[in-house]
Amino acid sequence: MPNLLVDIAELTRSQRDRIAAAAGARGWEANFASGEASRFLAVNAEIIFCQNPALLKAAEHLKWLNVPSAGAEQYLDAALYANPGAVLTNSAGAYGVTIAEHIVMVTLELMRRQGEYNQVVARRGWLRTLPIRSIRGSRVTFLGTGDIGRTAASRLRGFEPACITGVNTTGHPAEGFDRVLPLSALDDILPKTNVLVLALPGTAQTAGLMDGRRLALLPRDAFLVNVGRGSAIDQAALVRLMKGGHLSGAALDVFAEEPIPKEDPVWDCPRLLVTPHVAGNMTLGYTLDRIVDLFLENFDRYCDGRPLMRVVGREKGY
Amino acid sequence: MPNLLVDIAELTRSQRDRIAAAAGARGWEANFASGEASRFLAVNAEIIFCQNPALLKAAEHLKWLNVPSAGAEQYLDAALYANPGAVLTNSAGAYGVTIAEHIVMVTLELMRRQGEYNQVVARRGWLRTLPIRSIRGSRVTFLGTGDIGRTAASRLRGFEPACITGVNTTGHPAEGFDRVLPLSALDDILPKTNVLVLALPGTAQTAGLMDGRRLALLPRDAFLVNVGRGSAIDQAALVRLMKGGHLSGAALDVFAEEPIPKEDPVWDCPRLLVTPHVAGNMTLGYTLDRIVDLFLENFDRYCDGRPLMRVVGREKGY
Repeated sequence: MPNLLVDIAELTRSQRDRIAAAAGARGWEANFASGEASRFLAVNAEIIFCQNPALLKAAEHLKWLNVPSAGAEQYLDAALYANPGAVLTNSAGAYGVTIAEHIVMVTLELMRRQGEYNQVVARRGWLRTLPIRSIRGSRVTFLGTGDIGRTAASRLRGFEPACITGVNTTGHPAEGFDRVLPLSALDDILPKTNVLVLALPGTAQTAGLMDGRRLALLPRDAFLVNVGRGSAIDQAALVRLMKGGHLSGAALDVFAEEPIPKEDPVWDCPRLLVTPHVAGNMTLGYTLDRIVDLFLENFDRYCDGRPLMRVVGREKGY
Repeated sequence: MPNLLVDIAELTRSQRDRIAAAAGARGWEANFASGEASRFLAVNAEIIFCQNPALLKAAEHLKWLNVPSAGAEQYLDAALYANPGAVLTNSAGAYGVTIAEHIVMVTLELMRRQGEYNQVVARRGWLRTLPIRSIRGSRVTFLGTGDIGRTAASRLRGFEPACITGVNTTGHPAEGFDRVLPLSALDDILPKTNVLVLALPGTAQTAGLMDGRRLALLPRDAFLVNVGRGSAIDQAALVRLMKGGHLSGAALDVFAEEPIPKEDPVWDCPRLLVTPHVAGNMTLGYTLDRIVDLFLENFDRYCDGRPLMRVVGREKGY
């Protein structure tokens, strides 16, 4: 009997039941485990659905690894695997809804100076006069036109922005954007951007993309939101620029180092809203349901011998 | 030469210029003033555009008072006026965009437990495990289907809520809602509501509408947002219920007494997000532009002898 190992602590009883039923219907044995038991069961597993790279070294019979995250940087190195030929799939597509809500929330918090009003309220004060801004009429630019960018764009549309521009490697079309530009046009679009949203995977190509020079190309009163990977921004340059008065606000959910070191200057940067990498984790029930949906769709494909979806290219990294 | 007095400190130079040009084109004299000068100029003004009820007692020739706010409770009492026959118009329609953005922002802050994450970040902590909720699939109910409710509904639509219900006095149709119910159906809809948004004018009919009994009809895990008037909620009952574990969160922008007294229990209520009546003030440039647009539309009508729009019924109060 072929063997499926699931090591995802967050799954609810009903989500486990769905996976067990799907496996049973196809004549598979599904094991749900964690810790030492997982390491033991990994040895005979043909499919593993987990978020623990340490399991892979024992998994001699592994043919398919499915990870619940959208980013898969941790699973690219062939040296991690007993069987480096195993196919790797991610759960891109499960996080659009929750990350889009985060993007809209923090954009509005920055524009409406909610951090400052929170401080007024914390000391039981009453102040109503801070000038605020609006998504209406704003020029929004997304770096990254995947599920997250598209889902956020569809939610922002109702707020009547002036335009929503997507930027991806080649400028290939993507749903929900007024236009999509190639990465080569980035320097041209930055000065015309009111809100820049980074929704990029962590790859060699995206690392340091928003360096100090490019951050300085944004208008002084622009807003910046990063929900992809901290590596995409030169974080030290950002803090330096913001301390000098550049940008009206920034919201970072991802950082150069996580957890953020206690002495990191990012904690003390003015107009910077820090969230602890919560835009797209598995704490929303809907997200976990989607992760299971996506896995079960691929499980059917695997059993039928059809090609899997969301295969991560080990070279590209996404 | 007929005389227009404008006493709105927030107006920009270009907004004043627009009003002056429109007045000049119609053969009117436009005076921009404040304080003692306003009181002096009010005596001869046929039209006043201000937010100061104290001016009205001197305005013997007043025929039309336009206020920049959407609520006009302060201007209803005939005893305020030297000429109680003057027509009163408000600026309803100018605040939909800014208040809708506030509604979406605070709803997401409550659902995503942003207040708690802010506290984690304030002590440089790192925590990612708070269970969160989503607008997607939520049943949203608006009390009040005016400009604010409609504009917010159109923005929430993109988030894929299960349904958006409006409630108004008679159940008359309003754009942007899946259905509109009469006030008589309120007790039926409350238990089926995940997010209740109050966008009601302050009138005798709305005062105390959400009393303790009705607040208790909401599901224990519901969210409540009030952007209308504090009088619509029994605030003491709300705090008592929330201290007992009722509601997953509430965001109040308006209060029984404003500024909130220092010793008010509302400051200390768990899961309650307080903002100092900033959802719809004049700190957004777009709002002020719209207020001027609306005034100038009505000014044209006044000069043509056509009926004014947004006339406030002294009995209804809106």
